[in-house]
Amino acid sequence: MPRTTPALAAPGPSQPFQTVELERRDLRDDDILIDIAYVGICHSDIHTVRDEWGAAHYPMTPGHEIAGVVAAVGPGVTRHKVGDRVGVGCMVDSCGECEECKDGFEQFCTKPAVFTYNTPAYDGSITQGGYARQIVVTERFALKIPDALGLDVAAPLLCAGITTYSPLRRWGAGPGTKVAVVGVGGLGHMGVKLAAALGATVSTISRTMDKADDARALGSTEHIASSDESAMRAARRSFDIILNTVSADLDMEAYLALLRPNGVMVNVGLPTSRYAVRPGVLVGRNKVLAGSNIGGLAQTQEMLDFCAEHGIGATIEMIGADEVDTAYDNVVAGKVRYRYVIDTSTIGG
Amino acid sequence: MPRTTPALAAPGPSQPFQTVELERRDLRDDDILIDIAYVGICHSDIHTVRDEWGAAHYPMTPGHEIAGVVAAVGPGVTRHKVGDRVGVGCMVDSCGECEECKDGFEQFCTKPAVFTYNTPAYDGSITQGGYARQIVVTERFALKIPDALGLDVAAPLLCAGITTYSPLRRWGAGPGTKVAVVGVGGLGHMGVKLAAALGATVSTISRTMDKADDARALGSTEHIASSDESAMRAARRSFDIILNTVSADLDMEAYLALLRPNGVMVNVGLPTSRYAVRPGVLVGRNKVLAGSNIGGLAQTQEMLDFCAEHGIGATIEMIGADEVDTAYDNVVAGKVRYRYVIDTSTIGG
Repeated sequence: MPRTTPALAAPGPSQPFQTVELERRDLRDDDILIDIAYVGICHSDIHTVRDEWGAAHYPMTPGHEIAGVVAAVGPGVTRHKVGDRVGVGCMVDSCGECEECKDGFEQFCTKPAVFTYNTPAYDGSITQGGYARQIVVTERFALKIPDALGLDVAAPLLCAGITTYSPLRRWGAGPGTKVAVVGVGGLGHMGVKLAAALGATVSTISRTMDKADDARALGSTEHIASSDESAMRAARRSFDIILNTVSADLDMEAYLALLRPNGVMVNVGLPTSRYAVRPGVLVGRNKVLAGSNIGGLAQTQEMLDFCAEHGIGATIEMIGADEVDTAYDNVVAGKVRYRYVIDTSTIGG
Repeated sequence: MPRTTPALAAPGPSQPFQTVELERRDLRDDDILIDIAYVGICHSDIHTVRDEWGAAHYPMTPGHEIAGVVAAVGPGVTRHKVGDRVGVGCMVDSCGECEECKDGFEQFCTKPAVFTYNTPAYDGSITQGGYARQIVVTERFALKIPDALGLDVAAPLLCAGITTYSPLRRWGAGPGTKVAVVGVGGLGHMGVKLAAALGATVSTISRTMDKADDARALGSTEHIASSDESAMRAARRSFDIILNTVSADLDMEAYLALLRPNGVMVNVGLPTSRYAVRPGVLVGRNKVLAGSNIGGLAQTQEMLDFCAEHGIGATIEMIGADEVDTAYDNVVAGKVRYRYVIDTSTIGG
C-alpha cells in the first residue's frame, strides 16, 4: 500500500482547496521523510495554482517554504537523522553533476532542476509540495534549521529568505553600502531584515507611506513613497543596491536614477511588461540591471545559519487549513503582514 | 601674447576641418605642456563634431586619444618631467574631492568631470582636444605611457583601451571565463586583444563572417555571424561575459540568451532605442545587463601598464591632417582597420 499523507490540493485554477490523501513515494536509498510542521504561502504559489504562469498540473498541492522534523530515513542517508529539524525550499532534485550544480547553483541545473511542486520529477511524476503533513525528498535538498530558529518563522526563509539573501550577497550588501528595498511584502520584509543584519544602511520604497512605520520596525532607516516625486528626486544617486521585490511594472529609469555610479538594481519579481531602459542610463554611470532567482543549496544553508546567528525569522501570520483560500485573496490584495504560514497539523484529520 | 598651437577645428556640424591656431592656456602651477605626437579618431569624435549628441560648441577641436611627450612643466608639477612619454584620455579635470573621485571614478565626479573637448572647464572656457600639436593639462590627468608601447599604437588605448579594459576587469574576465565581444571595430578589436591577454577564451560576434579572419588574428577563437540563426542558437548558454561594443540597436534578448547563468552583458555603445528585455530573461538565470563608461585614472594607468607588459597596442591606420574628413566617412562606413591615428606633425606648418 502506498504511503499517503493529508494534503491540500487545488482541483483547478479557480476552485477552492480540498483536503486529499496525497501519495508520497517509498523512501529511496537517499530519501528522508519529513513531518511538516509549517509551510509558508508564497505569492508564486498563487500564480501557479491559478495557472497565471501556464503549465499547471491539477490536482496541485503547492508549497515550497517547508519546515519540519525528519521522521524516517532511507538506508543510505548520511546528512540527517530522525528528529532533525529540516527545511525544504523551491527545489527537490538536480543532476548534481553539471557545471551549475558543481558551482552551487542547483536551480540552474542543465538537466534541469526539479522544483518542489508542479514540475516533472526525473521519474516522470509531477512533484507535489508542502501544503501537507509529510513530504519525501532526497536528503541533499533538505537544509538544516538551526535550533535558534522557530520552525514557524523559519519556513518562509526557504523561499523568501534565500530569494532576498542571495542577491544581497552577490551584490555586496554590507557595512558602508546603502540598500533600498522596493516593496515591503513577503519578500521585501525579509530583504530589509537581511540587508540590515548584513550591516547595510537600508531604505524602503513603496507606493505610499502606509508601511513606513512597519518598515522602520523591520530595520529601514528611511521610507520613500514612490508616488512622491520630490522624495524620489531627493533620493537620486544615493543607493549602491536596489533590491526590487515587486512584480508590478515599474518605471525602471526612475529607480535606476536612485543609484550611485556603479550601482545595481536587482530584481526578483516577474512583472509582465518588458524592462525599458535607455542605454545611456546604464552606460553613463556604469549601472547594472540584474535579476536573481532563489539560491543554491549551500547558500540556502548559509542563509539559515546567518538568520539563526542574527535572530532573524520571517514576520508571520499563522493560519489553519480552512483559511488558505481567504489567505490567497489577502496576499493578492497586499493585506498580509508579512507571510502566511499554514499550521499543517490542521490539514485533514 | 597667448600660447597658440596648430590644430584642426570643425567650424560647424557639416563642414570640413580647418587648420587653425588654437590658444592654449599659460601653464598653471600643476599644468604640463604636451607635444602631441599622435591622436586617435574615436567614433564619439564624429558624433560630437556632427552635433549628433547635441550641445556642440564650434569651432571644435576634438580628440581624446592623445599620446605625446612632455615639453614643459608648471612650477608645482611632481608627477612628470620634460621628456616623459604621456597620454591624455577622455578627461582633463575633476574635483578630486568627492566620493567618486576618491574611489577612482573621476569620470563620475559630482562637480562634474571636465571632458577633454567640447565641455565647460572649471574656468568657464570650452575645452579643446587633441587634434593639435600641443595641449596643456593638469598633471593628474596625464598618464605615463611605458617605453614598451609605441606612442602611435598607445594613443587609442586612452579611450578605446580603457573603455573595454574597465568592464572586462569589473566583470572578471580571466582564465576559465568565456567572453564574447560583439562588434569588431575600434572598441571591439581592443576588447578582443585585452580579454585574450587577461586569459579569457574569446569569441567574436558581428553581423557577418567578413571579419572572421581578422578576429582570429586579434585573439578570437570563434567568430559568430549574428545573422546566422543556427550559429546563434548553438552559442546559447555559453558565455560568462558579453562585451557589446556596437552602437546599433540589437535584440538584447537574443544576446542575453547566449549567457550562462549569472552571466553579464555589458554595453559600452549608445544606441538610440531603449533596451527591451522581459524580466524573466534576467531573473530566470541571475543574468545581468550593465553599462560601462571609460574608466578612472588609476585604472587607465593600470591598463597602459598591462598593455605594455603584454605587448598590446591598437591596430591602427596612420593618416595625415588632410585625410581626417575622409577618415570620418570611413569610420562611419566601418571601413577602418581598426583605428585611425593622426600624425599631428602634419597639422599646420
